[in-house]
Amino acid sequence: MAHSSRTNVLTSQQDDFPRWYQDVLEKAELAENGPVRGTMVIRPYAYWLWERMQAEVDGRIKATGAENVYLPLFIPQSYLAREAEHVEGFSPELAVVTHAGGKELPEPVVVRPTSETLFGELMSKWIQSHRDLPMLLNRWANVVRWEMRPRLFLRTSEFLWQEGHTAHATREEANAYALRIHLDVYRDFLQNVLAIPVLVGVKSRRERFAGAINTMTCEAMMGDGKALQMATSHELGQNFAKAFDITFASSSGQVEPCWTTSWGSSTRMVGGLIMAHGDDQGIRIPPRVAPVQVVVLAVKVDERTMTIGSSLVRELITAGVRARLDNRTTQGFGRRATEWELKGVPVRLEVGPRDLQSGHATIVRRDGGAKESVRLEAVSTTIVALLESIHTEMIEAARQRLMDRTVEAASVTEALDAAKAGFARIPWEQLGEEGEDALNREAVSVRCLQTRQGTVPGNGDLASDLMAIVGRSY
Amino acid sequence: MAHSSRTNVLTSQQDDFPRWYQDVLEKAELAENGPVRGTMVIRPYAYWLWERMQAEVDGRIKATGAENVYLPLFIPQSYLAREAEHVEGFSPELAVVTHAGGKELPEPVVVRPTSETLFGELMSKWIQSHRDLPMLLNRWANVVRWEMRPRLFLRTSEFLWQEGHTAHATREEANAYALRIHLDVYRDFLQNVLAIPVLVGVKSRRERFAGAINTMTCEAMMGDGKALQMATSHELGQNFAKAFDITFASSSGQVEPCWTTSWGSSTRMVGGLIMAHGDDQGIRIPPRVAPVQVVVLAVKVDERTMTIGSSLVRELITAGVRARLDNRTTQGFGRRATEWELKGVPVRLEVGPRDLQSGHATIVRRDGGAKESVRLEAVSTTIVALLESIHTEMIEAARQRLMDRTVEAASVTEALDAAKAGFARIPWEQLGEEGEDALNREAVSVRCLQTRQGTVPGNGDLASDLMAIVGRSY
Repeated sequence: MAHSSRTNVLTSQQDDFPRWYQDVLEKAELAENGPVRGTMVIRPYAYWLWERMQAEVDGRIKATGAENVYLPLFIPQSYLAREAEHVEGFSPELAVVTHAGGKELPEPVVVRPTSETLFGELMSKWIQSHRDLPMLLNRWANVVRWEMRPRLFLRTSEFLWQEGHTAHATREEANAYALRIHLDVYRDFLQNVLAIPVLVGVKSRRERFAGAINTMTCEAMMGDGKALQMATSHELGQNFAKAFDITFASSSGQVEPCWTTSWGSSTRMVGGLIMAHGDDQGIRIPPRVAPVQVVVLAVKVDERTMTIGSSLVRELITAGVRARLDNRTTQGFGRRATEWELKGVPVRLEVGPRDLQSGHATIVRRDGGAKESVRLEAVSTTIVALLESIHTEMIEAARQRLMDRTVEAASVTEALDAAKAGFARIPWEQLGEEGEDALNREAVSVRCLQTRQGTVPGNGDLASDLMAIVGRSY
Repeated sequence: MAHSSRTNVLTSQQDDFPRWYQDVLEKAELAENGPVRGTMVIRPYAYWLWERMQAEVDGRIKATGAENVYLPLFIPQSYLAREAEHVEGFSPELAVVTHAGGKELPEPVVVRPTSETLFGELMSKWIQSHRDLPMLLNRWANVVRWEMRPRLFLRTSEFLWQEGHTAHATREEANAYALRIHLDVYRDFLQNVLAIPVLVGVKSRRERFAGAINTMTCEAMMGDGKALQMATSHELGQNFAKAFDITFASSSGQVEPCWTTSWGSSTRMVGGLIMAHGDDQGIRIPPRVAPVQVVVLAVKVDERTMTIGSSLVRELITAGVRARLDNRTTQGFGRRATEWELKGVPVRLEVGPRDLQSGHATIVRRDGGAKESVRLEAVSTTIVALLESIHTEMIEAARQRLMDRTVEAASVTEALDAAKAGFARIPWEQLGEEGEDALNREAVSVRCLQTRQGTVPGNGDLASDLMAIVGRSY
């Protein structure tokens, strides 16, 4: 890993949260702007984090029975026009290739903003009979949506994501599968790996995906009280199936359009992780997703310390811990410690000459900064247990913040007031689409609608007794 | 997995090899054309194969110390112009975005054909001192090179690949690292995972990568005797470093340009695997890369057979074998067996009522078709050993073909004659660039130059006593 320049120079979150975010991306060497406006370079440490996130999400997706495919970057412009709402939703964001191979193309092609339409076209070929259903497909790739106000990881003109696309025989099956993805893949990953508590629910009609009959969302609260949409799952009803002729012959031989779904999560989650857990010393990575869970740091880089350090790393790796040794001699101890703090490694194991004399090392937690002296023989068992408690305490702290900063509101005025520092919870019957208009005028939006128990409303029915969660958002 | 239509309908390789290739891609449900000319849809089974290949290559790349990053899809057109040979090499193949976000762009942007130039720009920022060297980076992504004569996996306008980019302090270090990638990553993967023997060597001046001072290549022979370039590694000398100002301060404080390398392998390897190992019954996947190594196939789908089949699958998985049960009732046994044959699963374990009565099952090898009855208790130990011998026998068979079809030639005429059925080996001193011209006029090319011992010439020196391997190629 390249050494960073001075590290203790982050703007404080209190002073200017967006500035802190920019600072930490730069100082922790996570990402920077590409030369074309809105594009992003993801540097090794952040990409490693993304690879770990990808593996966790991918495993969960495959466990639902879906299979990965690859579909092309380029889509004929005419495809997008087939589903009316869809083309309206995307047309201002498209990047268009007009020349290729040294010539003007007969028909311009669009760089995929999503592959809904292409999956539609292919499924119409691949699906003939009820025996082909459900068809469960997923794809990891880059997509392009031209951004006027780009922000690294949160809104970039190109981003990396997975998009799942499925076809089913009935609305009930489509709904059940989308809900399963939403809870067992997204919510489970966000809470149990990223340690970010999320509110699950459905989007209001206005906030739905273009062409969907229902959009489910996972909403998280960032360190400044603003919301970030972490992942969404859409029921597309029969809209795309009708537009793309995705039909199946039922067992009785009747030909019917399928019910389709789509669902996605992206590199935006990296931004969410940074903003949900970071503090004035840098980012804080929850242990289960951390590329490096423990860094063994020699206070003095001498032979004896290095030998003991190496054997501790080996022991930790054997115990299933992602550990690495920092044996750099180009920088002093203090600077190296600060750098790992900035990069959010959950545990530092400091090995110093004095400690070693009494057979000890010092465990330093990144989350609270607590230090603990531990006997060398007990290092790996202590750390294995510690990593689990760090996860629990991190999600608990985030949950506490979410609770503290969510206010029950009884009017638009109260909701707007609450949204200055966090979320408001207000009965949807009381807010309604008119109230939503009023919020929108003040840059506050309905993040999701959920039941009073905090669950996803069945079948996307907005008529029932729902609560709206409102807030400002990224 | 969706069921396929009639499977025993491949054109024979003997009759028409390219047609056989198209047939097998379709019947084994591997890939098909996308709607935009030259683009490709990779279907679940082939994508799974690619994921396995990717994991194997990625692990080897990381073992050399390189780290993964992500760089943007879009590159300013001006970047490509900075290195003269490079722009010439790529300009006929570029796809250009002229409109985005509903407007014409002030400067058109190019869809990356490779990210050489962008890595150059970034390394110039990231590298300051000798302490930042070597910088070893890699990226997995899609790239676009407009193809006039596309062929699935082999030449597509968009393909998936990894491209590595490194910077070093000296030419020797750059050469040694490129060679390490070439042998320990590419050759090792191709031979020890894909079971494809490769010839390693360097490209002639004419066949070098645009802007490189030396290109190393791994060349394989396909089933029809034609060559396929499987992976290449380039030494870029100081060309890109000078064009992009990638400099470092040495320990004595002197500022010098770096020596850079780049190296890549792509989805073309999937095509190579199909054409190197396939036969008239379908593809044949070598065991180490096979997504499914063993399929347990019930001759009759009844409860007892299914119970035993499931427990055999569990046992195999416990023994580290990638096994799955085929419990489909929608198709008869014969059809299912043919389908797995078509998809090249190395071993079928057939479980029939008669066999079961005597406590046996039947092992059927995909590579030679040999059948063997085995006691149920011995299934997993037998199969674990068998998978290893299948690998060895597959690479041996491919090596035998390579030897049988490589002819020592003493003149251009003899070389051209040999190239009708395979490769010719001819001293480079004798062939020379004039001889290369003569070959090229007959669509035969110099695939690589290697020492008489078959190794990569040191430092890309073309003046020494080298042998040219010539042949037709994909």
